[in-house]
Amino acid sequence: MQDIRHLRIVLIGAGNLATNLGMALTAIGCNIVQVYSRTKASAQTLADRIKDSDTDRICDFTDEISNIRTDADVYIVSIKDSALAELSDEITAINPEALWVHTAGSMPMDIFSTLRRGVFYPMQTFSKSELVTFKDIPVFIEASNEEDSALLHSIANAMSKKVYELDSSQRKHLHLAAVFCCNFVNHCCTMSADVLSNIGVPFDVMLPLIDRTAEKLHTMSPVEAQTGPAVRYDSNVMEAQMGLLSTRPDLQQIYRAMSDSIHRYALKHDAD
Amino acid sequence: MQDIRHLRIVLIGAGNLATNLGMALTAIGCNIVQVYSRTKASAQTLADRIKDSDTDRICDFTDEISNIRTDADVYIVSIKDSALAELSDEITAINPEALWVHTAGSMPMDIFSTLRRGVFYPMQTFSKSELVTFKDIPVFIEASNEEDSALLHSIANAMSKKVYELDSSQRKHLHLAAVFCCNFVNHCCTMSADVLSNIGVPFDVMLPLIDRTAEKLHTMSPVEAQTGPAVRYDSNVMEAQMGLLSTRPDLQQIYRAMSDSIHRYALKHDAD
Repeated sequence: MQDIRHLRIVLIGAGNLATNLGMALTAIGCNIVQVYSRTKASAQTLADRIKDSDTDRICDFTDEISNIRTDADVYIVSIKDSALAELSDEITAINPEALWVHTAGSMPMDIFSTLRRGVFYPMQTFSKSELVTFKDIPVFIEASNEEDSALLHSIANAMSKKVYELDSSQRKHLHLAAVFCCNFVNHCCTMSADVLSNIGVPFDVMLPLIDRTAEKLHTMSPVEAQTGPAVRYDSNVMEAQMGLLSTRPDLQQIYRAMSDSIHRYALKHDAD
Repeated sequence: MQDIRHLRIVLIGAGNLATNLGMALTAIGCNIVQVYSRTKASAQTLADRIKDSDTDRICDFTDEISNIRTDADVYIVSIKDSALAELSDEITAINPEALWVHTAGSMPMDIFSTLRRGVFYPMQTFSKSELVTFKDIPVFIEASNEEDSALLHSIANAMSKKVYELDSSQRKHLHLAAVFCCNFVNHCCTMSADVLSNIGVPFDVMLPLIDRTAEKLHTMSPVEAQTGPAVRYDSNVMEAQMGLLSTRPDLQQIYRAMSDSIHRYALKHDAD
């Protein structure tokens, strides 16, 4: 197992994922020598947080691609997918011999054309303001050769108990599943808050229900946990609820599509 | 404040909500004298659980409406909405002087035509197999007169820290908001599990993400917490994900509708 503390790492990106990953890498002893962000203040903020966590540490920052260090061992690129697609050739030219790793669930490893390339995808929703512990976060890795795969395993194992190898084509499905479980789940709560605002009830009355909905999934499958009028297609309730949304065709459309889908899955589950 | 322990209560229903409420009522000292369910075994199971929680207790059960006790003070009706609409006249005829209370978020109080009627709606998702504590569950109450309102307040305050009065027309919106936050949230996880099954990854890898998605809502509003490709309408990722669902027009339709809606809310939030 390689000593990951001797690696010089450049972190490209300073957003939610980059910030959480940068701090987690620092916590396991990795040496992040520089942070790049196209927004200078973001690059500086993250570099400062990394330095603050260990006063002996040196961590540079830049907002210019031409100033990214050329002597690192590993470049971890954690920027939004569209920027990754756009910049991958330009940035890898900085040091084509190094290991280039991105953190995007939906992007293939081969977005990098370097010989040594990989993916390090911690599947979680992050925010800069609340750092999360990586211990229980599943990390999905992929690398273009065995040695780099072992290296990414060493890093991932040092921060998480749940490390999986998954190739790019499988990871696409994983990322899509995460969109349903996180982005769409959150959006259901956005729509709920919107409905609640009509009666002046604060959204936090919903929190015990949301917590319990999540908690139930630790002991039963989602299709088993499903409740509500759509399961048995209680059309009285459903029509009344559609009526409450009569001024909101956007929410009506989603209500109808979700209810129909819940009912189809319930029928299929009963038949199985 | 009325001494709620002297009330004789009949519980009509023995499902998930009735079971959790029955045990919570018993725990605060209420006297449930009988459980009715059209399924005898369910009525007996719940009556036995209530008796087992206190060996001095007597709790009868029946599966015949004609055998429901006529001498109770309060009848709490916790059956599915369609059955409530169908049976309300028949059951209230048992004892038209008593207080008749139902627990359905989506049903008006006036589904009962008795003089004394009310609603006791604990907003949570329940299952018989895992009893939950009511302390943090918001309970929404309504009653046809002040004395019964005070009585329902006494019962609700004894089990929950969060008791609200809400009339039937407002409660409809509340229940709709709960459908979005619980039933639709859970269904997003069902679809996620379905997508994951394509690559043989077990659903439990999603649990940290689901937990964190719920947890974030304790410190930020859902629209602020929103992440994912649809927020900035990253059409490359979105088209690729639609492509992964090409054999599943049902999931494609939901993917599209949810993504469009996420983007609209994000634009509106930015503009505000």
